[in-house]
Amino acid sequence: MSNVSPAKGYSRDSRYITTRITADGRDGFPVEPGRYRLVVSRACPWAHRTVIFRRLLGLEKALPMAIAGPTHDKRSWTFDLDPGGRDPVLGIERLQEAFLARDPAYDRGITVPAIVDVPSGAVVTNDYAQLTLDLSLEWAAYHRDGAPDLYPAELRPEIDAIGEEIYADVNDGVYRTGFAKSQEAYEEAYGRLFARLDRLSERLEHSRYLVGDTITEADVRLFTSLVRFDAVYHGHFKCNRHKLTEMPVLWAYARDLFQTPGFGDTVDFGHIKQHFYVVHGHINPTGIVPAGPDPAGWLTPHGREALGGRPFGDGTPPGPPSPAETVPPLLVPSRP
Amino acid sequence: MSNVSPAKGYSRDSRYITTRITADGRDGFPVEPGRYRLVVSRACPWAHRTVIFRRLLGLEKALPMAIAGPTHDKRSWTFDLDPGGRDPVLGIERLQEAFLARDPAYDRGITVPAIVDVPSGAVVTNDYAQLTLDLSLEWAAYHRDGAPDLYPAELRPEIDAIGEEIYADVNDGVYRTGFAKSQEAYEEAYGRLFARLDRLSERLEHSRYLVGDTITEADVRLFTSLVRFDAVYHGHFKCNRHKLTEMPVLWAYARDLFQTPGFGDTVDFGHIKQHFYVVHGHINPTGIVPAGPDPAGWLTPHGREALGGRPFGDGTPPGPPSPAETVPPLLVPSRP
Repeated sequence: MSNVSPAKGYSRDSRYITTRITADGRDGFPVEPGRYRLVVSRACPWAHRTVIFRRLLGLEKALPMAIAGPTHDKRSWTFDLDPGGRDPVLGIERLQEAFLARDPAYDRGITVPAIVDVPSGAVVTNDYAQLTLDLSLEWAAYHRDGAPDLYPAELRPEIDAIGEEIYADVNDGVYRTGFAKSQEAYEEAYGRLFARLDRLSERLEHSRYLVGDTITEADVRLFTSLVRFDAVYHGHFKCNRHKLTEMPVLWAYARDLFQTPGFGDTVDFGHIKQHFYVVHGHINPTGIVPAGPDPAGWLTPHGREALGGRPFGDGTPPGPPSPAETVPPLLVPSRP
Repeated sequence: MSNVSPAKGYSRDSRYITTRITADGRDGFPVEPGRYRLVVSRACPWAHRTVIFRRLLGLEKALPMAIAGPTHDKRSWTFDLDPGGRDPVLGIERLQEAFLARDPAYDRGITVPAIVDVPSGAVVTNDYAQLTLDLSLEWAAYHRDGAPDLYPAELRPEIDAIGEEIYADVNDGVYRTGFAKSQEAYEEAYGRLFARLDRLSERLEHSRYLVGDTITEADVRLFTSLVRFDAVYHGHFKCNRHKLTEMPVLWAYARDLFQTPGFGDTVDFGHIKQHFYVVHGHINPTGIVPAGPDPAGWLTPHGREALGGRPFGDGTPPGPPSPAETVPPLLVPSRP
C-alpha cells in the first residue's frame, strides 16, 4: 500500500476490495474453515494485525496462512520463501495473480493482508481494517476455547474512536512522515505523530491497556506500529524525536505486549528491516539494511503487571505457534 | 572531504596541502597574529576540531575565523551566511577560490578546515590533523593566559596511538559505514565502529578523560564524532546499534565535555543536520532534514565530576565566545 500524491504530502490509496466473508455469507463468501487462505507478509504492519488476531483467536486451522517474502518488486508481493517460489496451496508465484483472478482489469494496489478463496484462486478482500473486526465477530464459531473478546460490544465506540486517532497519526502517520515530499509536509506529519504518542503515553501511564482492562483491537493496532518504530520508522522514516526505547511508558507497554503470547511470537525483525530498506528505493537508494538496533531490550522486564489488568479477560493465552509459523529468535548483534 | 572508491568500500581522499604555519616559518609561513584566516564550517567534524582548539587556547584574535554555510554544491563550501554571500575579509564567495589561488590546477577536495593567507588569498593548508597539533605547539606564543596543554609532551605517544584508533574506527568509521556501497562493506565498518566504542566506553568508565586526567587532543577528536552521533550518524549513516544516549558511559562523557566551555558553545546542531542530510543526496535523495532528535539531554547532569580529573590541568576555562561567534541555543522541539 503506497502512493505519493502529486502534491507534496503522501496519501494512502485506500480503495480496497470490500467484499466480506461473513457468517451468513451475504456477500457470497460464507465463513468456512479451510476454504480461504490468508496471505500476509511478516514485514507489513497492516497484515501484522491479522496475524496477531489469528493467533489470539486460535484461527490457525480454520484460516491457513501464506507468508510472502519481505521484499517485492513493482508488480507484487511474491512467494519466494516457498519451495519453487510458489505458494503450495494457491500454486501462484505472485499475489498479483490472485488479484487478477478476481478482476483481470485490477489496477490498484497488490496489498497484504489479502484473503484468497482457494477454490477459485481469487482474492475476496484486502480490506485490512474490516478484516480484524470480521475475525472477531464473523469467525466466532471457529475461535479456540478461551479466545479473548478483542472487540467487546460495550467498548466498541471507544475502541473505534481511539483506533481512528491511531490510524491517522501513527499507523498511517509514520508513512506520511517518511514519504513526505517537502520539509513542510514532513514536519506536519512528524508533529502529529509525536503529539499523538505523547497523548497515548499519558493514557497508558496508569492503564495497562488502551481501552478497558484487557487487550483489545486498539492495542493490536498500536502494537504493530510500535514494534516497528526503532527498527524502521525512527531512521528510515525520520520519526526521530525519540526512539521507542526513550519513551518509557510506551516502551514498557510495547514490551508487555511483545512478551504476551500472540504478539512477539509473530514479529520477524529481519523481514521488517529487509522490506522497508530494500523496497523503498526512493528514500534508501543504496538498499543497505541497517544492522541495528539491538533488539535485546524487547525481552527485559516491563513492570506493567503492577497496573493490574487481565490480558485475556475471561479467556486464556494462546499456545505456542506451530513449527512452520515460528519466527526466528531475536537476533542480538554480537559484541566483542 | 568525500570520495567513494570504485570498490564497494568508502575511502577518504587524504591528499591534503601539507604546508605548515610554524613559529620559525620554515615553510614560508610564520605564525603571525592576524595574517591568516581559519575557514571552517560548523557542520564539519574535521573543522570542528580546530574551532574547539581555537577556543580552548584563546586564539580567537590571533587567528580570525570565517564560517562557511552548512551546505555546499559540487564545487565548494560557500560563504552564504555572510552579507552579500562573500567572506568580508577574503572577499570571496566560494572557498574554492582560495584553493585555486594557491594552485590554479588544484583538483582535489575543497575541504574545511583550511587556513588562508590573507595577503595572497591563497590556502596555506587544509591538513586538519596537523593543524590542531600546530595550534598547540607552533602558536603557543599567542595562547591566552591559562590556556591548557592539550598535547603534553609526556603523553604524546598515548594520545597519538588512541587518536589513530579513533580516526580509523570512529571519525572516519562513521563515513565508511554511511557511504558503504555494499552490505558487506557496511557491516564491516559498523562492526569496527561499535567494537571501538565499546572499548572506549570501558576505558572511560573509571577515567574522566581519555589520556591522563585532563582534556587532551584525544578528547577533542572523540567529541567531534560523539556530538554528531545521534543527530546524523545514527540514522543517516545507519550507525544504529545504539544511540549515544543509550551508551551510558560515552553519553555522560560527551555531556561532560559538551558542558565544558569551548565544547558545547561551538556546536550548531542545525548546521550539522542541514549539511549531512542536504549535501549527501546519494543517500538522502529527498533532502528532507529530520526534526529530531530532541537535544535537551545534552544539558542534563552527567555526574562525571565524581571521577576527579582536572579539565584544564593547571590552566583555566576559556571565557564566553564573542557575540559574532555565538551559536544558537539548543533547539528543543516543542511539546503539546
